[in-house]
Amino acid sequence: MGGGTILVVEDEPLILLEIETALEEAGFTVLSSRNAEEALSAFDAKPEKFKALITDIRLGPGKSGWDLARLVREANPTMPVIYVSGDSAIHWPAEGVPNSIMIAKPFFMPQVITALATLLNEQPPVAKN
Amino acid sequence: MGGGTILVVEDEPLILLEIETALEEAGFTVLSSRNAEEALSAFDAKPEKFKALITDIRLGPGKSGWDLARLVREANPTMPVIYVSGDSAIHWPAEGVPNSIMIAKPFFMPQVITALATLLNEQPPVAKN
Amino acid sequence: MGGGTILVVEDEPLILLEIETALEEAGFTVLSSRNAEEALSAFDAKPEKFKALITDIRLGPGKSGWDLARLVREANPTMPVIYVSGDSAIHWPAEGVPNSIMIAKPFFMPQVITALATLLNEQPPVAKN
Amino acid sequence: MGGGTILVVEDEPLILLEIETALEEAGFTVLSSRNAEEALSAFDAKPEKFKALITDIRLGPGKSGWDLARLVREANPTMPVIYVSGDSAIHWPAEGVPNSIMIAKPFFMPQVITALATLLNEQPPVAKN
Amino acid sequence: MGGGTILVVEDEPLILLEIETALEEAGFTVLSSRNAEEALSAFDAKPEKFKALITDIRLGPGKSGWDLARLVREANPTMPVIYVSGDSAIHWPAEGVPNSIMIAKPFFMPQVITALATLLNEQPPVAKN
Amino acid sequence: MGGGTILVVEDEPLILLEIETALEEAGFTVLSSRNAEEALSAFDAKPEKFKALITDIRLGPGKSGWDLARLVREANPTMPVIYVSGDSAIHWPAEGVPNSIMIAKPFFMPQVITALATLLNEQPPVAKN
Repeated sequence: MGGGTILVVEDEPLILLEIETALEEAGFTVLSSRNAEEALSAFDAKPEKFKALITDIRLGPGKSGWDLARLVREANPTMPVIYVSGDSAIHWPAEGVPNSIMIAKPFFMPQVITALATLLNEQPPVAKN
Repeated sequence: MGGGTILVVEDEPLILLEIETALEEAGFTVLSSRNAEEALSAFDAKPEKFKALITDIRLGPGKSGWDLARLVREANPTMPVIYVSGDSAIHWPAEGVPNSIMIAKPFFMPQVITALATLLNEQPPVAKN
Repeated sequence: MGGGTILVVEDEPLILLEIETALEEAGFTVLSSRNAEEALSAFDAKPEKFKALITDIRLGPGKSGWDLARLVREANPTMPVIYVSGDSAIHWPAEGVPNSIMIAKPFFMPQVITALATLLNEQPPVAKN
Repeated sequence: MGGGTILVVEDEPLILLEIETALEEAGFTVLSSRNAEEALSAFDAKPEKFKALITDIRLGPGKSGWDLARLVREANPTMPVIYVSGDSAIHWPAEGVPNSIMIAKPFFMPQVITALATLLNEQPPVAKN
Repeated sequence: MGGGTILVVEDEPLILLEIETALEEAGFTVLSSRNAEEALSAFDAKPEKFKALITDIRLGPGKSGWDLARLVREANPTMPVIYVSGDSAIHWPAEGVPNSIMIAKPFFMPQVITALATLLNEQPPVAKN
Repeated sequence: MGGGTILVVEDEPLILLEIETALEEAGFTVLSSRNAEEALSAFDAKPEKFKALITDIRLGPGKSGWDLARLVREANPTMPVIYVSGDSAIHWPAEGVPNSIMIAKPFFMPQVITALATLLNEQPPVAKN
């Protein structure tokens, strides 16, 4: 029944673990990454494998979550995007992509599950090959 | 606290079992059926008992999920309708009913729970008798 | 600046004239038709020319507006669809296509203009050839 | 083609005239009133005649626009409601009714036309008698 | 990871316990109360602590859930509000606040979790202090 | 009744004139500009004067419409943003800001009026000073 993989990017190991565990308990398949470059490598290797992106904004040196989401959306314009951030949430109206969801930290885990399920349900149907 | 019954129609026994189990674990009451005719008999016997319809599209010989949803909506114009399908998802823009949700297989189970809860929450309030 | 053509189908000549005139005054290009078969011929001859469908439901002998919208949506799954009807409006929850708008007669003309503009603005962006 | 009457309530004569004129030019039929009591008398005399309410908030001594909208919605739970106000706009999150639109003064007239057309288009279809 | 506290107001002890337990199992922090006055005292003591209000309508003598939601929204105009009610659900179109959700009893618990998560995700981002 | 000024940025003089004329005929007040730098100077000089931004994407040498919208949204996070573009429309899912509208050229003028009115009506109410 697995509908692909959710790409989760977060540089704080404890929060990453918490999100990963909650998604897997809810039945999602997860590929997690601690920075944007690693996430992009995984995505570029097999873009059609990923069904959604959940990303923190500040990811240490290198690309931010804003950059990552734009790159992923250039490749897949209908990819669901969820940002999870504390200090950077206020920049979402300027830096976020259209039809994305910003979840401000601290948050409750059902917010992530519901955001993900809602965006997946809004995906336009496509022909199967 | 049970808010009525969810009518689930799916001709693949394993997927039906999986959906039924997940809905019941989430607290929903389910009546499941393996074809449209059986589902319609149950619905026609007591239409006010059912709070939502979750249906596959291809249901073997006889009526399709598209037909079933139209018949149910003629009787109850505000009935929440969720389609779950693989190959038939691309026909939803032509064959689906308004305000329905199409979940393409393969999918993650929280998509069904969230779709169901969201549509139930959008129901217009009605006078109790 | 013309963004394609709006296909308008209505079997009552006076109402057809009224809609056609109002749309043209608002700046839309219109191709009008008095039955579903004629409308389908025009659509099939050049599907990419049409940006939206506005149709009555009861169109005399032959196909209904419900049929017409399904056929058009099979060819173009994101085509904006607006139904304009009196007696048939109550069947929209069962017979309409997803993301369509039902305008019940009698209506005010700005309802048609606003419905059309709103659905056109929600169209997903596509690559130009 | 007239789809009923729009009830417009505003105690400043110049603004009332401006709204009334703009709505009529756009093709709407308007019944205007300068206070809530007069508006309620007209509404109570023939509730099914009215298709939407546009009201200012501060209406001199007597009932406010908040009160008026609640009374109209008790009689017709799906009545489109548009508030037009300057100082009182900030109280809309606490005092407005669900699915209403608040237009803050000063405003542009197309905001009123579009709000009205959008809410009318979202009306659930009902059986004709 | 706790994102604040959910204020739950319900005068039937068994239903209150059921909602409280379900929310806490889903990972929410809850402060529950059996009447509007007690809830207001808790809210007024530390308004920024509360992230959402879930309230029954009939709360015995004193303020109703309609009153409570209006008072909370005056203090925090973007506070998510969910009403849970049986007989009073039909008055929501007149008495509810904008952008609130009415869940009619009897209901399924995932409706409350999904409503809460959805409204929290729609909160506008704010600067952290 | 003027509700502020709409900032329109377009480097093709004929299209700029057409949009400007249509907006003014609809009752809007317009400040038009042919490049991003000029538009930013006007905006920075008096940010609170502007109620919405309508911008083309390719604006010759210098900043693009994508850049312009981000800068304007940093200063005013709730500013309505409408993009009007031909070739660049396909990049909107990656480069647009949240809650913006992309209108692909060629378009019909009522699309711009309706987009503008709709976004203005969704503005959160704010306290007047």
